[in-house]
Amino acid sequence: MKAVILLSGGLDSTVCMSVANNKGYELYPISFNYHQRHKIELESAKKVANFYNVKHHLIIDTNMDAIGGSALTDKNIDVPCGNIERKDIPVTYVPARNLIFLSYALGYAEAIGADTIFIGVNSLDYSGYPDCRPEFIQLFQNLADYSTKASIQDKKHIKIETPLLRLTKKEIVLLGTKLMAPLQYTHSCYNGKEKACGICDSCKLRLRGFEEAGVNDPIEYINR
Amino acid sequence: MKAVILLSGGLDSTVCMSVANNKGYELYPISFNYHQRHKIELESAKKVANFYNVKHHLIIDTNMDAIGGSALTDKNIDVPCGNIERKDIPVTYVPARNLIFLSYALGYAEAIGADTIFIGVNSLDYSGYPDCRPEFIQLFQNLADYSTKASIQDKKHIKIETPLLRLTKKEIVLLGTKLMAPLQYTHSCYNGKEKACGICDSCKLRLRGFEEAGVNDPIEYINR
Repeated sequence: MKAVILLSGGLDSTVCMSVANNKGYELYPISFNYHQRHKIELESAKKVANFYNVKHHLIIDTNMDAIGGSALTDKNIDVPCGNIERKDIPVTYVPARNLIFLSYALGYAEAIGADTIFIGVNSLDYSGYPDCRPEFIQLFQNLADYSTKASIQDKKHIKIETPLLRLTKKEIVLLGTKLMAPLQYTHSCYNGKEKACGICDSCKLRLRGFEEAGVNDPIEYINR
Repeated sequence: MKAVILLSGGLDSTVCMSVANNKGYELYPISFNYHQRHKIELESAKKVANFYNVKHHLIIDTNMDAIGGSALTDKNIDVPCGNIERKDIPVTYVPARNLIFLSYALGYAEAIGADTIFIGVNSLDYSGYPDCRPEFIQLFQNLADYSTKASIQDKKHIKIETPLLRLTKKEIVLLGTKLMAPLQYTHSCYNGKEKACGICDSCKLRLRGFEEAGVNDPIEYINR
C-alpha cells in the first residue's frame, strides 16, 4: 500500500508523514524546489525522508517564482511579522501553490500506483489561504476522481487524506510527539536562515503551538 | 482584458491562441519545458508568441519527467505509430499533465489579474486522454472558482475557455486558417526532430485534418 506525501519539511507535513507511516503505508514523499525564499525547508524535507528510510524521495524543481505575486518567492516583498491573528490573506500566499503541488502528487501517485495522497493542510491556523480549506480539498478530490487513467480504466480512485485539517497547532504538536515524528529536523521560519528567527508569523504560530502543548520545541531559535 | 493561453507550440494551442487574439484579449502565453521528448515544440511556442508580439511569454521549467510513466518523457518507451483509431489510453499520456498545466495557468492568471485561461483541449480526436474530457474541464472550473484569493476576496472568477473542445481536427485547421494563425510555426510530431516524421500517430492525425479541410499543411515532413 503506497502513499504519496507532500513533504515540505515544515512541522505540519512532517507530522502528516508520521501519520501515514503509522497507518502502515509505504512512504513516497514529494518535495518542491520552487525557488522559495526558505529553501532550507528542502534540507529539512530530505532529513525527514531519510529518517523514515524511504525508497524514493521525489524532488520537483520548478521556477514557480516566475509566476510572481508572493512574499515567499519574491525577495522584494517582506515576510509578515506581528500579525498572527489576521483575517485577510497574507502576502505569503503563493497563487495556486497547493493546487500545483497536489497536481504533481496526483500524477506521481498515478505513475507509481499509490492509492492515497497525504497533505498536511490545516484550516484552523491558516484559514487565510483559500487552498487550505476543506471545500478546496473536496473539490480537488472530485477532480482527481475524474482525471486519472486509473479512474477510467480500473475505476480505481486515489484518495486525498488530510489528517491535520481540523487540528490546532497544539494538537498537531501533540500528535507528532505521540507518533515520534522527527520534529527536530523540521523548519517553519519564513526567513530561511539555518536558525529560525522566532519573530515571523510562522515562527510565532509554531512556538505558540508547542507552548500550548507543553512540549519543548527541539529546533534552535535566534530570538525566543 | 488579459488572458493566459496554454501554448505548447502544437496545432491546437496555436489555433487557441488565434481565437483569444481574435476576441481582443491581451495575450499571456505560458509554455512548459517539462523535459518532454519533443522539446522542439517549445521553439515553436516561442515563434508563435513572437508572431503575436506578446508582452511576456512565461516559460515554466520543471522536471516532470521525474514522475515517470509516459512515452513523452521517457526515452525507453516508444512513441506510438499506426493506430490513430485506438480507443484505449495511449502510452503518450502523461499522468496529470493537463491538471499540472492548468494549475500553473491559474496561479499565473491570478498573479497578473487575467480573467480567462484558454486551453486547446479537444475531446474528439484525443478522446483517450482522461484530462481532455469536458467533465474534467468543468470539474477544474469548479475547483478554480474556489481556490484563488480573488474568488474569496473579490468574488471574481477566472473562466476556463476551451474553444476547440468539440471540434474535429478538420474544423480546427479551418478555424486556424480563417483566423490566420501562424500554422507554419507549429509542431505536432512525437519524435521531436526538426522535420516532422509524418508517420507517428500525432503526424497522422494532423495530416488527416489538413487533408479533410482541403488546406495545405505548411510544415515540412520527412515522409508524407
